Amino acid sequence: MAKIKVTIWNENVHERGTGDVADLIRGFYPNGIHNALKEELTADDLEITAVSLDMPEQGLPDALLAETDVLLWWGHCAHGRVEDALVDRIQRRVWEGMGLIVLHSGHYSKIFKRMMGTSCSLRWREVGEKERVWTVDQQHPIAKGVPDSFVVPHTEMYGEPFGVPDDAHVVFISWYEGGNVFRSGLTFQRGAGRIFYFSPGHETFPIYRNPDVVKVLGNAVRWAAADRPPQKTNCWDMDPPTESVASRNPLSDVDTADLHKAK
Amino acid sequence: MAKIKVTIWNENVHERGTGDVADLIRGFYPNGIHNALKEELTADDLEITAVSLDMPEQGLPDALLAETDVLLWWGHCAHGRVEDALVDRIQRRVWEGMGLIVLHSGHYSKIFKRMMGTSCSLRWREVGEKERVWTVDQQHPIAKGVPDSFVVPHTEMYGEPFGVPDDAHVVFISWYEGGNVFRSGLTFQRGAGRIFYFSPGHETFPIYRNPDVVKVLGNAVRWAAADRPPQKTNCWDMDPPTESVASRNPLSDVDTADLHKAK
Amino acid sequence: MAKIKVTIWNENVHERGTGDVADLIRGFYPNGIHNALKEELTADDLEITAVSLDMPEQGLPDALLAETDVLLWWGHCAHGRVEDALVDRIQRRVWEGMGLIVLHSGHYSKIFKRMMGTSCSLRWREVGEKERVWTVDQQHPIAKGVPDSFVVPHTEMYGEPFGVPDDAHVVFISWYEGGNVFRSGLTFQRGAGRIFYFSPGHETFPIYRNPDVVKVLGNAVRWAAADRPPQKTNCWDMDPPTESVASRNPLSDVDTADLHKAK
Amino acid sequence: MAKIKVTIWNENVHERGTGDVADLIRGFYPNGIHNALKEELTADDLEITAVSLDMPEQGLPDALLAETDVLLWWGHCAHGRVEDALVDRIQRRVWEGMGLIVLHSGHYSKIFKRMMGTSCSLRWREVGEKERVWTVDQQHPIAKGVPDSFVVPHTEMYGEPFGVPDDAHVVFISWYEGGNVFRSGLTFQRGAGRIFYFSPGHETFPIYRNPDVVKVLGNAVRWAAADRPPQKTNCWDMDPPTESVASRNPLSDVDTADLHKAK
Repeated sequence: MAKIKVTIWNENVHERGTGDVADLIRGFYPNGIHNALKEELTADDLEITAVSLDMPEQGLPDALLAETDVLLWWGHCAHGRVEDALVDRIQRRVWEGMGLIVLHSGHYSKIFKRMMGTSCSLRWREVGEKERVWTVDQQHPIAKGVPDSFVVPHTEMYGEPFGVPDDAHVVFISWYEGGNVFRSGLTFQRGAGRIFYFSPGHETFPIYRNPDVVKVLGNAVRWAAADRPPQKTNCWDMDPPTESVASRNPLSDVDTADLHKAK
Repeated sequence: MAKIKVTIWNENVHERGTGDVADLIRGFYPNGIHNALKEELTADDLEITAVSLDMPEQGLPDALLAETDVLLWWGHCAHGRVEDALVDRIQRRVWEGMGLIVLHSGHYSKIFKRMMGTSCSLRWREVGEKERVWTVDQQHPIAKGVPDSFVVPHTEMYGEPFGVPDDAHVVFISWYEGGNVFRSGLTFQRGAGRIFYFSPGHETFPIYRNPDVVKVLGNAVRWAAADRPPQKTNCWDMDPPTESVASRNPLSDVDTADLHKAK
Repeated sequence: MAKIKVTIWNENVHERGTGDVADLIRGFYPNGIHNALKEELTADDLEITAVSLDMPEQGLPDALLAETDVLLWWGHCAHGRVEDALVDRIQRRVWEGMGLIVLHSGHYSKIFKRMMGTSCSLRWREVGEKERVWTVDQQHPIAKGVPDSFVVPHTEMYGEPFGVPDDAHVVFISWYEGGNVFRSGLTFQRGAGRIFYFSPGHETFPIYRNPDVVKVLGNAVRWAAADRPPQKTNCWDMDPPTESVASRNPLSDVDTADLHKAK
Repeated sequence: MAKIKVTIWNENVHERGTGDVADLIRGFYPNGIHNALKEELTADDLEITAVSLDMPEQGLPDALLAETDVLLWWGHCAHGRVEDALVDRIQRRVWEGMGLIVLHSGHYSKIFKRMMGTSCSLRWREVGEKERVWTVDQQHPIAKGVPDSFVVPHTEMYGEPFGVPDDAHVVFISWYEGGNVFRSGLTFQRGAGRIFYFSPGHETFPIYRNPDVVKVLGNAVRWAAADRPPQKTNCWDMDPPTESVASRNPLSDVDTADLHKAK
């Protein structure tokens, strides 16, 4: 059985910086979040490639994107540096069936905002408080083997209201020590592509070493990769009628070819 | 009671052309689709402005957009000429509460595709066949006073599958003489803004003179204009905790200020 | 303008009991939850009737039900005593357009379970902990004038997972001191009727004297009462075709009348 | 790999009658719709049992129901004869994860109406007209290998509006020669159970011998049987808090045990 081809993209900015914060992050993600996730998610049925913004073609050349079954995305302060043309190509791949898992501050990434059509804004607080993630849809494949609830000991709070559209299907809701709540695990579908947004993952805490978080992401990869025929994304040619059409407007004898010049 | 401020935007390309098709269209829309719609929708509770792409600032200067309660959009072959920066501003206004009614070939407009995050593709056929629009959600405000079904005698068929996301709420489904079906009246919400997509409206037929179509659009204007507080679209400042936070990570003493430089 | 006719139904069992708990409840709801809600919701545009299970016809004779625009329902330990025939009539009235607001332990009422088709189960804890209700859909009419969040100082925790179907639209999510979360304010539509479920309201605390809770319920009454044409609930007669039907199966000459005998 | 245990339930009334209609039906379903479906769906990964209302325990003794992964349901004129207690047990099995496929006139079955909480009413016409089923969600597992559209040469028209709740996910929409449209293939989830409603299947035409219809139903069986943990349907015991609770209401010292007597 063919392995699921997973690409993990990380902007890799904090990790390559200098100073206390960069040292902190490198302490638990020595080779960046992308390589840490690759280590944690390694499994026999997955073929994982870890890439970053600083690589050629921003880490996602066409050949790689074309082969990717599921793309994980972690970004924070460099959303604006991702090329619009690359975002176009990622969006088209999702419509064609590539799964997309957006992590933490990726809620403000170009690709997530592009898919949502909304502001994607949220409340936040960075004081290292405790988070408890509750499994709301316990029957969802992403919840398989995940406890009724699990703790992220230190987190960055993300709080409601979360500016996403109404088709957000709730898999997880988080409780924060400081009093907030947040729909922290949401699924969407765009074209043939499945999307999962998962909020835990602030860079100053080793959240991607948390076995429950890794369990969720592993489930999400298999769920997002599930086989589906691609959705047609380009314009259709004109459809022949399947039934006879009697009421043809005599005015339609007028040549309408020029109407489709710049369609 | 304040009037609802309606702006009707039309690319106004076909109407200003030369040849048989342009003559045809000007026959029933002498001053363009936008002015025809303005005539048809005129009512005591509406203040309607008709604009077009060829006007300064593409018909939608900031002052007008800021005052608009509901924007109607008809475009066909000039979607690409609408400035991205204008689309950004329209999107933001919708998030803030401006209603948006997208008509016919506007399914491929930048603003509709931006709101949907999907391809918005569909099947089509231009032979002047008959369309019957069925009212599926008879309790919806947009369906008020609309018959169980009504006929558009000559239409451009739009057929499933329609590439829109799952939060599309079905108000109307159309039957086409040539054998197709289409979810022809759909509502969405993006931020505080309500969106209604309505497919009838091909330019070579006087569809916006059809009283049933006008009834639907009039209802849609009142529905989309309904008063709602704007949704916050910009980033929030950091939230103070509402509960006491005990488990502060000693590592968070590290200065994280630089993490938010380019957020 | 006609007043909205509101009927508040309460099983009124705890209040009429003996012992400490009954005394406790009567301390803040001297005439029962139904009359307390009536006092709190009194307004010029509402005509409120407070009824209870112990009244003739279980508080809801046909004449009253037929006139009710919005029904509020509070029940806890006597769900089983509500007559199935009454539940049938309430369900039919909701399909016809009567609004339904289900409170707290009413999640296990026959009428709510009948509308949901699911188990409606949830986690719970009765220790008097603090609850913070967050407004998730700030643009919803039910959220009008409601703060970003508000406190219920002492509550009965209701926790996820909540066994309701996927069309539950989230208006509020609650945070509980003991670590749980819950989608505490949800809207649904069944036929022409709007339904709002709101969880705060445990009987041993004066929650219906809380101005924020009362604000929510007042908004919910106006939202649920909004005018909509009734939905047809009985079987339709056979539809005449709107288009000519050529492919009539010669076998359909067979007399199928007897097929509809026991339909 | 364990076979999927499929139970096909049919009221089996028309087939056992006398007269032209009964002869007609027995012509293509000699042993009833249930056995015809069993023949058509036979496959290596399925273990199919065909039962009917006239059997002991109405065809669904507890032992069989407990073992069933997916239940198909065809009923028409005998809905009222199905025991409420049996409907309760079927509903509970669906909540626990049993798939349910409801066919044609089963829209008015007790089990489907119980799951929907709505009237489930629709328009209809029995003249043997042509139906074309369009695949709207081409990425859905139920649509796998199903053409863009397929014909049911002679059918009973089912027309909008269809009285089902808003969580109905559209897989198919049908076109009818007589001018109507209908959301003919819909999915729902109730508890852990997946539900698929499919309208083609009027008894006076050999619709279940149609390879496209059989393809859809075969896909639906595999989709509905997909493995999911059961959802808890009974009341939970009281949850211990996961966080320390400081604000315990002194009044909660009052003994509330008697409040839970008749819960």
